[in-house]
Amino acid sequence: MTNLSDIQSAEIEQARQTVMPTRRSVAEGLEEILFQAIPVLDHGFVRVIDYMGDDAAVVQAARVSYGRGTRKVSEDRGLIHYLLRHWHTTPFEMAEIKLHVKMPIFVARQWIRHRMANINEYSARYSILDREFYLPAPEQLAVQSVQNRQGRGDVLGADEAAQVLSLLKGDAERNYDHYLEMLNHDENGERLDQDRQGLARELARMNLSLNFYTQWYWKTDLHNLMNFLRLRADPHAQYEIRAYADVILDVMKKWVPTSYDAFREHRLEAATFSGEALKALRRMLAGEQVEQSQTAMSKREWDEFLAKLNPS
Amino acid sequence: MTNLSDIQSAEIEQARQTVMPTRRSVAEGLEEILFQAIPVLDHGFVRVIDYMGDDAAVVQAARVSYGRGTRKVSEDRGLIHYLLRHWHTTPFEMAEIKLHVKMPIFVARQWIRHRMANINEYSARYSILDREFYLPAPEQLAVQSVQNRQGRGDVLGADEAAQVLSLLKGDAERNYDHYLEMLNHDENGERLDQDRQGLARELARMNLSLNFYTQWYWKTDLHNLMNFLRLRADPHAQYEIRAYADVILDVMKKWVPTSYDAFREHRLEAATFSGEALKALRRMLAGEQVEQSQTAMSKREWDEFLAKLNPS
Amino acid sequence: MTNLSDIQSAEIEQARQTVMPTRRSVAEGLEEILFQAIPVLDHGFVRVIDYMGDDAAVVQAARVSYGRGTRKVSEDRGLIHYLLRHWHTTPFEMAEIKLHVKMPIFVARQWIRHRMANINEYSARYSILDREFYLPAPEQLAVQSVQNRQGRGDVLGADEAAQVLSLLKGDAERNYDHYLEMLNHDENGERLDQDRQGLARELARMNLSLNFYTQWYWKTDLHNLMNFLRLRADPHAQYEIRAYADVILDVMKKWVPTSYDAFREHRLEAATFSGEALKALRRMLAGEQVEQSQTAMSKREWDEFLAKLNPS
Amino acid sequence: MTNLSDIQSAEIEQARQTVMPTRRSVAEGLEEILFQAIPVLDHGFVRVIDYMGDDAAVVQAARVSYGRGTRKVSEDRGLIHYLLRHWHTTPFEMAEIKLHVKMPIFVARQWIRHRMANINEYSARYSILDREFYLPAPEQLAVQSVQNRQGRGDVLGADEAAQVLSLLKGDAERNYDHYLEMLNHDENGERLDQDRQGLARELARMNLSLNFYTQWYWKTDLHNLMNFLRLRADPHAQYEIRAYADVILDVMKKWVPTSYDAFREHRLEAATFSGEALKALRRMLAGEQVEQSQTAMSKREWDEFLAKLNPS
Repeated sequence: MTNLSDIQSAEIEQARQTVMPTRRSVAEGLEEILFQAIPVLDHGFVRVIDYMGDDAAVVQAARVSYGRGTRKVSEDRGLIHYLLRHWHTTPFEMAEIKLHVKMPIFVARQWIRHRMANINEYSARYSILDREFYLPAPEQLAVQSVQNRQGRGDVLGADEAAQVLSLLKGDAERNYDHYLEMLNHDENGERLDQDRQGLARELARMNLSLNFYTQWYWKTDLHNLMNFLRLRADPHAQYEIRAYADVILDVMKKWVPTSYDAFREHRLEAATFSGEALKALRRMLAGEQVEQSQTAMSKREWDEFLAKLNPS
Repeated sequence: MTNLSDIQSAEIEQARQTVMPTRRSVAEGLEEILFQAIPVLDHGFVRVIDYMGDDAAVVQAARVSYGRGTRKVSEDRGLIHYLLRHWHTTPFEMAEIKLHVKMPIFVARQWIRHRMANINEYSARYSILDREFYLPAPEQLAVQSVQNRQGRGDVLGADEAAQVLSLLKGDAERNYDHYLEMLNHDENGERLDQDRQGLARELARMNLSLNFYTQWYWKTDLHNLMNFLRLRADPHAQYEIRAYADVILDVMKKWVPTSYDAFREHRLEAATFSGEALKALRRMLAGEQVEQSQTAMSKREWDEFLAKLNPS
Repeated sequence: MTNLSDIQSAEIEQARQTVMPTRRSVAEGLEEILFQAIPVLDHGFVRVIDYMGDDAAVVQAARVSYGRGTRKVSEDRGLIHYLLRHWHTTPFEMAEIKLHVKMPIFVARQWIRHRMANINEYSARYSILDREFYLPAPEQLAVQSVQNRQGRGDVLGADEAAQVLSLLKGDAERNYDHYLEMLNHDENGERLDQDRQGLARELARMNLSLNFYTQWYWKTDLHNLMNFLRLRADPHAQYEIRAYADVILDVMKKWVPTSYDAFREHRLEAATFSGEALKALRRMLAGEQVEQSQTAMSKREWDEFLAKLNPS
Repeated sequence: MTNLSDIQSAEIEQARQTVMPTRRSVAEGLEEILFQAIPVLDHGFVRVIDYMGDDAAVVQAARVSYGRGTRKVSEDRGLIHYLLRHWHTTPFEMAEIKLHVKMPIFVARQWIRHRMANINEYSARYSILDREFYLPAPEQLAVQSVQNRQGRGDVLGADEAAQVLSLLKGDAERNYDHYLEMLNHDENGERLDQDRQGLARELARMNLSLNFYTQWYWKTDLHNLMNFLRLRADPHAQYEIRAYADVILDVMKKWVPTSYDAFREHRLEAATFSGEALKALRRMLAGEQVEQSQTAMSKREWDEFLAKLNPS
């Protein structure tokens, strides 16, 4: 597994050497890992490039203060929990983070649906992509789920898994070979045939499949980061994007530990009950035995309701 | 070239039969083509699904009026030109359009960079994509431009073009065959091997290449539509997305003819001169012979400056 | 109470006379009230100016369909409830509404915090505002709440209420008199003193107080409308903006009745329980008597928790 | 002129004492002034609270680099100019700034129209505003412009100016006196009448006029900051918001000097010519004498065209 070239590692190491004084608030947990590539999947990574603010910035903005705005740790913690619980989300927009992410194109296509972010993507109109494509680990090769039409079921048997991997790998290699051939380039960026100029890059790239890696700079604020994580660190999200969300959850924890705790408590581990679900809940708390047929909930909503009360 | 199945054409024809009375403003030019598929590229299309407002809505919003807000045609026209010329863009946000677009994935990836829009895309996690992929017409197969690193140069020779098309077609067909094989599906959606369940759709799709077609509902307001068109109907845009932009320009003309004229005049056919370019221009108008070396413009900016004054 | 002048009423009535055929989907409940002013507070109103789509548009977008996209009523209803319950909100962005709203400036200042909307406001740089200001009804004159620092407590006594209204009215009248005097205008827009030109409108307006009425065109999509209503139809919202939200809830019901039901069920009447609250709930359902001190909840969160279980 | 209390100045001074090491890029020009209040108008200010990135961040994002991304100064400068000239604006979204601004409410109402920003405003539902209101300097008291219905003309004569200031001051003082009376508070926050609780803050504030000061934290990216400055540092913007824009232009110069130069060159000092204007320009360059009547430009557009060629 290689996620970085030697040259890239050296550039990162060099960038980490420069340390400067600043009056801004500093998140020590993030400084520790700044610029380093945290590996994800077989060739991907997440790197923290820059950030603005920390837990105190949230508190400071909520109080519109002149100084640092923080008070006692317990008060600040209480305020952050209160803000999240009551959906007062604007103070969380006051902290910002910038990541460098490398991920398969099909992951990038899900990711970009989060519009409240800034993106600069590596351009395959302009540059030539590397021979890097995602091959799932065998334990991720699952059958189509029958219950959930957008999900995965059991893991494939060993033979079928081997066959799938062989097809994915063979096609990706061939597609990349032909990509280079159309570009009239060899693996080292040299022209293959001196008499040909090669197809335009913006056209040749269409031969690559959706498991090829792309990369971008992605910048968002803490409020929108939490929206991203709430949806993408969820068990219903596709495994491949969840792998990135899980890494970013760790980044968030290093950056804004109090907001992270509040986010776990009031979003990730929370559950919402509809009006009908609340009615059923109140009857159950009063000691009544409630059946689905006695409520206005559909079978599906009822099952979800029970799952919230009795998590597996 | 097939852009629609018979079933789809019938559904469209049926939807067009229903006509209802409304008090809202009606754009007759758009009603004419509502729901119809306007073909783009080899399998793509643009369909107008819905719209809100027309030129009068722009005028009405600019005047915050109680009634329809329009006055004499010449006054309304003057107001619309004034608004666009002076970048008073909020009244153009008051008209909205919704399109159904089918396009290659690499085009969708450029398109989605326009964030101020609403999108619902056909889900390949949930459904199986059709065997439809883009093959450029031979006259679109151009070499990599040397001047412009993101563009195209001359058209490929016939032999090289044939070879490129053969590679693109062969790889797309093979990728799709293997996609079905991994899904354990035949072309008609039947299970191939009764003993296998097939790989999850969200995984199998990664074997498709970027020239496969996807589709989405795309909704935006007139202001953001013009931003899209200004960038994507531009000669520097990649041909394939420009093909869509050109079709949408025609749609815009049917929808809001006065705004369309103003947009051509003050955006598409307009040119911006920097402070240094204006200084040079004033000297030239005073009869002076000006050279690049006598200005603070770079060689590249100077060439762009001359091109604005002497369009080819 | 006057919310419209005779001229305005006539313009509205005239606009309502024009009925045209359209192929677009039509929401009959909204057509009924289109353009009419629904009064709010003492001089305000909400008018529906235009709309795009209906419940079927939500369904159609979720299915990315070629025709109208609807199936059986029960299936469409189930889909809409499912989408809202699972925060799949993009299909709700496919329906759009445009309102003309007249409201006190302090209400407009809360309203505009909802950024995902398009606004054209009546310009007091350009035009002269009318002598129209908000005076609360006596039963709305409440003391500062002690528990909730952003809320209201009991209603003022009659004497204190009369004194407050007298101050509010006297100051607003005087401010407006002086506004006209600075503009050198009388009530009918005639120049007062022929030798003076009058202060610029953009300056004179600063003498008006925050209870003066302004008006704007406001356009948003159904998803963002629900966000607005969730926050502004809430008991914690200030009464004056809630009065508008309540009227718009009725508008929503006429426009998209199925989405409205789902919104009541899964947002307005729903409640979210944090991870700690869920733990307590599970213990209570198991028959245990739970005290705040046995949980990790703060006193405040605990009280909110009990209030969700036992609404007053 | 007082823009800060002693306590506030002390809090700011204390915050400036803390200096920490960071690996992030540091803009030395901004560090110099961080947290300090730059006075604007009679009681307002702009304070830089935080920032992320600098000119190098723009370059780094445009190149999607692993290290700092910068090359030779001249190359970086050329790239930034190229990006701005060609409206490649996404790299400028990668730098972010956070300001604390105190301004009259009517200025805040113009400011907030820029939606692509994050805001936390001091809440008058929650807190009591200070007795601080804007009174224009006499040289800013201008008559209504006749040519430009949203602008100012000549300065008022001394007598009329004195009368206007007397009205503005008298009304603001009286409105504030009554605000306190309704709140049942004296100037020091003490209860006036022990038997009254006082009107709710969210209601009493409506008696304040639009020249009272409010304050907020405002955070935006460099791209949107430039949009703000292009519109608000423009001579057509109202003087009072322009005073803030001019101060922020200086801040921008300290923060990102290369982007600032490019912004001056390609936005502030640039001019756009419509298709018709370009045609006229080409004829003039060919030595022709062109009159408005020989073009398709309106009288107004023609005058604007000449003004671009011959700035006063």
